[in-house]
Amino acid sequence: MTGSSRNRLYVALIHHPVIDKNGTTIASAVTNLDLHDIARVCRTYGVKGYYVITPLKDQRVLVKRILDHWATGVGGIYNPSRRQALELVRVKATSDGMIAEIAQAEGLWPKTVATSARRHLSSLSYRRLREMLIEATPLILAFGTAWGLSDAFMDAADYILDPLTGEATYNHLSVRSAASIILDRLLGETI
Amino acid sequence: MTGSSRNRLYVALIHHPVIDKNGTTIASAVTNLDLHDIARVCRTYGVKGYYVITPLKDQRVLVKRILDHWATGVGGIYNPSRRQALELVRVKATSDGMIAEIAQAEGLWPKTVATSARRHLSSLSYRRLREMLIEATPLILAFGTAWGLSDAFMDAADYILDPLTGEATYNHLSVRSAASIILDRLLGETI
Repeated sequence: MTGSSRNRLYVALIHHPVIDKNGTTIASAVTNLDLHDIARVCRTYGVKGYYVITPLKDQRVLVKRILDHWATGVGGIYNPSRRQALELVRVKATSDGMIAEIAQAEGLWPKTVATSARRHLSSLSYRRLREMLIEATPLILAFGTAWGLSDAFMDAADYILDPLTGEATYNHLSVRSAASIILDRLLGETI
Repeated sequence: MTGSSRNRLYVALIHHPVIDKNGTTIASAVTNLDLHDIARVCRTYGVKGYYVITPLKDQRVLVKRILDHWATGVGGIYNPSRRQALELVRVKATSDGMIAEIAQAEGLWPKTVATSARRHLSSLSYRRLREMLIEATPLILAFGTAWGLSDAFMDAADYILDPLTGEATYNHLSVRSAASIILDRLLGETI
């Protein structure tokens, strides 16, 4: 089994810069179930922190209100396991803010691994990334909402992870499903 | 890669008999995102059919209305890939109705594999179930909504699958995440 003691992996859910259906860069809206589902997967697999990135102030206020409901409100009493999961969530306006916070906490500059449904040149295999998790460098696994991370974000990332592939002709997983599968591949028991 | 040509795997999302927080057997409400997320995973990995089981007639009508929106309504025009995924969904009142339909389509009686967050005696490993997928017998992988499948359902199932395990002390994935991870373990490329 893996856990926070064995890895320095963080997850980031990016709401800007992502693209819409037409390829235009947008800031997407936060989805409540993205917070819950991905936080529960992060907690299950021992991810160190789950960052929700949005430049929209009202969206950050909304996320904090949801977190408060579970951290100190009636939600945490009704369902303590949900509270435990959502304790991992941090909200930041930008990826730079996240990177600075992780660098300070870990004492080492983190590297960013972007995920994509498309195949890119010299992308990283799951096997290689699994090996990298036991190295000292903190890693941020970034997922795009809407139609995915923008080219600018991909270009600025240190690595791009291999896409998930099933049927050759269909590749349209929700970000919740993609994050679940990828974290199991990286941190789950080898089967 | 895997696909419908290589396996006879069906997925069932059970809304009754499942248990609530207190262990009482209930019929849970259908969640829109369970339809979408799990249908997209099924389509990605080549699952043959995705059955939504609920004895509540108004819930079956609701599911059919959602499916119609995507099959013949504006949804399918706006997002054809979503239509392709939801085409896999079938709605039945009972598991018996599903089993009879699959038996007729396949010409062989299917076996049911129940999933659970708890470990059971003589449960099936992922490796063994992966091997069983290339055999002729159709298989139904059953997921429970709410707090999981009832003991009566588990006892009646032909097999119980090993639970997903991450951190030893935490095991509270959403059914959407659990279905995503398990289908990747069974049908995804070996990494």
